[in-house]
Amino acid sequence: MTIDRIINILMKSNKIFVTFHQSPDGDSLGSSLALINGLRSINKNIFIVSKEAIPENFSFLSLSNEIDGNLKEIPSNADCLVTLDCGNVERLNCDVKLDNRNFIVINIDHHLSNDYYGDINYVDTKAASVGEIIYRILTEMKIDIDTKIAECIYTSILTDTGSFRHSNTTYNTHLIAGELINTGLDFSSVHRKIFDNKKIEIIKLQGLVIDSLYTNDSKDICIMKLTEDMLSKVGVKECDSADLISIGLKIVSVEIAILLKETEDGVKVSLRSKNYVDVRKVAEKFGGGGHIRAAGLKLDAPIEEVEKILLKELEKELI
Amino acid sequence: MTIDRIINILMKSNKIFVTFHQSPDGDSLGSSLALINGLRSINKNIFIVSKEAIPENFSFLSLSNEIDGNLKEIPSNADCLVTLDCGNVERLNCDVKLDNRNFIVINIDHHLSNDYYGDINYVDTKAASVGEIIYRILTEMKIDIDTKIAECIYTSILTDTGSFRHSNTTYNTHLIAGELINTGLDFSSVHRKIFDNKKIEIIKLQGLVIDSLYTNDSKDICIMKLTEDMLSKVGVKECDSADLISIGLKIVSVEIAILLKETEDGVKVSLRSKNYVDVRKVAEKFGGGGHIRAAGLKLDAPIEEVEKILLKELEKELI
Repeated sequence: MTIDRIINILMKSNKIFVTFHQSPDGDSLGSSLALINGLRSINKNIFIVSKEAIPENFSFLSLSNEIDGNLKEIPSNADCLVTLDCGNVERLNCDVKLDNRNFIVINIDHHLSNDYYGDINYVDTKAASVGEIIYRILTEMKIDIDTKIAECIYTSILTDTGSFRHSNTTYNTHLIAGELINTGLDFSSVHRKIFDNKKIEIIKLQGLVIDSLYTNDSKDICIMKLTEDMLSKVGVKECDSADLISIGLKIVSVEIAILLKETEDGVKVSLRSKNYVDVRKVAEKFGGGGHIRAAGLKLDAPIEEVEKILLKELEKELI
Repeated sequence: MTIDRIINILMKSNKIFVTFHQSPDGDSLGSSLALINGLRSINKNIFIVSKEAIPENFSFLSLSNEIDGNLKEIPSNADCLVTLDCGNVERLNCDVKLDNRNFIVINIDHHLSNDYYGDINYVDTKAASVGEIIYRILTEMKIDIDTKIAECIYTSILTDTGSFRHSNTTYNTHLIAGELINTGLDFSSVHRKIFDNKKIEIIKLQGLVIDSLYTNDSKDICIMKLTEDMLSKVGVKECDSADLISIGLKIVSVEIAILLKETEDGVKVSLRSKNYVDVRKVAEKFGGGGHIRAAGLKLDAPIEEVEKILLKELEKELI
């Protein structure tokens, strides 16, 4: 079995390095820190390689200070590199060449689009998060899952499933979450740290976006705007579009939410749908792309014009 | 065992009635409809007694149309009354006298404060939701949990745990959620129906409340206002305070959130804390009450004055 081969290599390696995809999220950070905490507990030499430091909102995780962006390359004395949550070599958060090396690459992931670039590839597309795979490996190794490790894995699960909401959530996800809770983990506090971590400026920006929000006559399309003026009014440079567009989706009658974001070189458009509209299809008409329920595109035209064009196009998709 | 006695009575009864607490929530509605759907599937005569009709946002649940507020009393030919999620007789959603009757009362609940008013009392304070207890009873009865029943129980769990967030969530909660998912239930759609069901007017009101929002100098207290003017501006009469106050708690630095709500006879104040402040203690100083992390009070004074008094009092609680 793949899992036995992985455990075998980890046990034999003297120097293990772990990396993950660029712009690391809760799953890549949580799963890597779970692995580091777990293997350290049995005295393995294991370290993080990352060009980026951990984002502030995940700094509560144990050993998060080791994701400081200082170790960018795989040292020459490495025995093994574990890559987590990353489908291809180009997206890895480190400088690595895979053709001429002395270490084994273990590729652990859950993306359908994984390239199988490792010597060993453990790609479980049914796992909602890579954290679940790491949980499986650690328990198979009989490593004690303490509250610190539990917190890392719970973070993986919570962020990649949207608190058990997204359709990737499985029976197994819930079973592992239950077992993590049983370690005595303060899981409510993890929810707070992950979901209640906004700056007041971002909340104020949400207020301005709500002020711009309106629906079409049939109330199934919701349009929101984010202008440069709004950003400077609250004093922030950037805001996560996903957080903003979800406001429109909270409206019961809405099937499609549109966020029009003014940028220096045109309007960036985010599209979301709830139940049936294929927003990718519409995005592709304008050179954009994405998924059925979440897509995006960019148009170099005044915001009011983009608004009109898209509304007209999206109205056609409604039943 | 209590559960065996309950099953025994349910199987022997010809006419079973079910009721729950006044102002029914997701747990009482979900658990009662799960019980009705389950027992109907084995051809039992079972009916809902309720003075209130089901709120619109739960009308997606199977057989929800039977909660229409028409049957308010227990008919004289009843064999058994099952009361769900209700700690005392006074709060029941029906007209019932327990001293002179011909039917058995089965009291199923999870509140610590239950009065044990039934002939049989199944009060499991460790259950996060009554839905979990009903799941236990139905599976013990070998009733097939189809997606309709699963949807009812999942709704119970989701609403009473805040999507697996509140500290009442247990290993068992997750295990049952996993088993419900395995029935093929479209659980993502249940999340949408429960959490993304706002009217646009309520979202607009949130925008106005955000506009009123500010923090104290140390940024650990967040103050929000809901005035009569705001309500009339967006054209609604009422809004769930819990939804509004949670906006302030999303700010990372905030320990206490205050919502000041203007009413005809003074200011209604909601208080929430995140980690350590006992807001009940403060509420009690002004004749209010509640829990450590969620409390309320009412003061008959202008809103600006209430704001000053409370800020001063709450500042003392900060460490």
